Amino acid sequence: MEYYFSKTINITFDEAIRHVTDSLKNEGFGIVSEIRMHEKLKEKLGVDFKKYTILGACNPAYAYKALQVEDKIGAMLPCNVVVQELSGGRIEVAAVNPIASMMAIQNPELIGIAKEVTDKLQEVISRL
Amino acid sequence: MEYYFSKTINITFDEAIRHVTDSLKNEGFGIVSEIRMHEKLKEKLGVDFKKYTILGACNPAYAYKALQVEDKIGAMLPCNVVVQELSGGRIEVAAVNPIASMMAIQNPELIGIAKEVTDKLQEVISRL
Repeated sequence: MEYYFSKTINITFDEAIRHVTDSLKNEGFGIVSEIRMHEKLKEKLGVDFKKYTILGACNPAYAYKALQVEDKIGAMLPCNVVVQELSGGRIEVAAVNPIASMMAIQNPELIGIAKEVTDKLQEVISRL
Repeated sequence: MEYYFSKTINITFDEAIRHVTDSLKNEGFGIVSEIRMHEKLKEKLGVDFKKYTILGACNPAYAYKALQVEDKIGAMLPCNVVVQELSGGRIEVAAVNPIASMMAIQNPELIGIAKEVTDKLQEVISRL
């Protein structure tokens, strides 16, 4: 099982961030964290890395359901969506597959919720 | 395999956040995101939830190594540490077990890195 769903698109990096943010919003996900990894790596290690941002996407209703059935599930929240610049300037967007990342958790109620969230994230990526 | 390492401690919620942040710093992890889930749930759904913060911990050197061998690994970064208030006012701190969350990824080089990060996070929790 792949641990992410991805798509490569031909827009600028900043446009991709906005586009993905809007698409996630349409499925009920807000962005609760944004880590500009290339800037962190430059600041902390002095290295040059391709543009690479991790958006933390959270659908509050699903997060609430998940937290009620599995109180440590925050260890795997929010659902990350990676936006990175490939060679040639194309942009790859990859959303985590919650079913794959939560494989180690034996909780049938959680798996039901994770499946619904997975469907939504897969939909967001396929429509980009 | 458990997907987290946890410990329950008897300090206030805010003290726990500071204490964990300091302990992570000692092992080379900076906090790159902080999601106050109880505030988000109140704001978005109007529900009361126990104090529950997700700290995103990132060790830049390990993150850089991981990104070089697995370019979509940002879907599972940073390493989350959950701080939550239990009944009676005690505080539980739970760090993700990267070996468990990355189970679905078939990349031996990544597994080596994840093991080292796992040891560090386990050390942080055990010393709280």
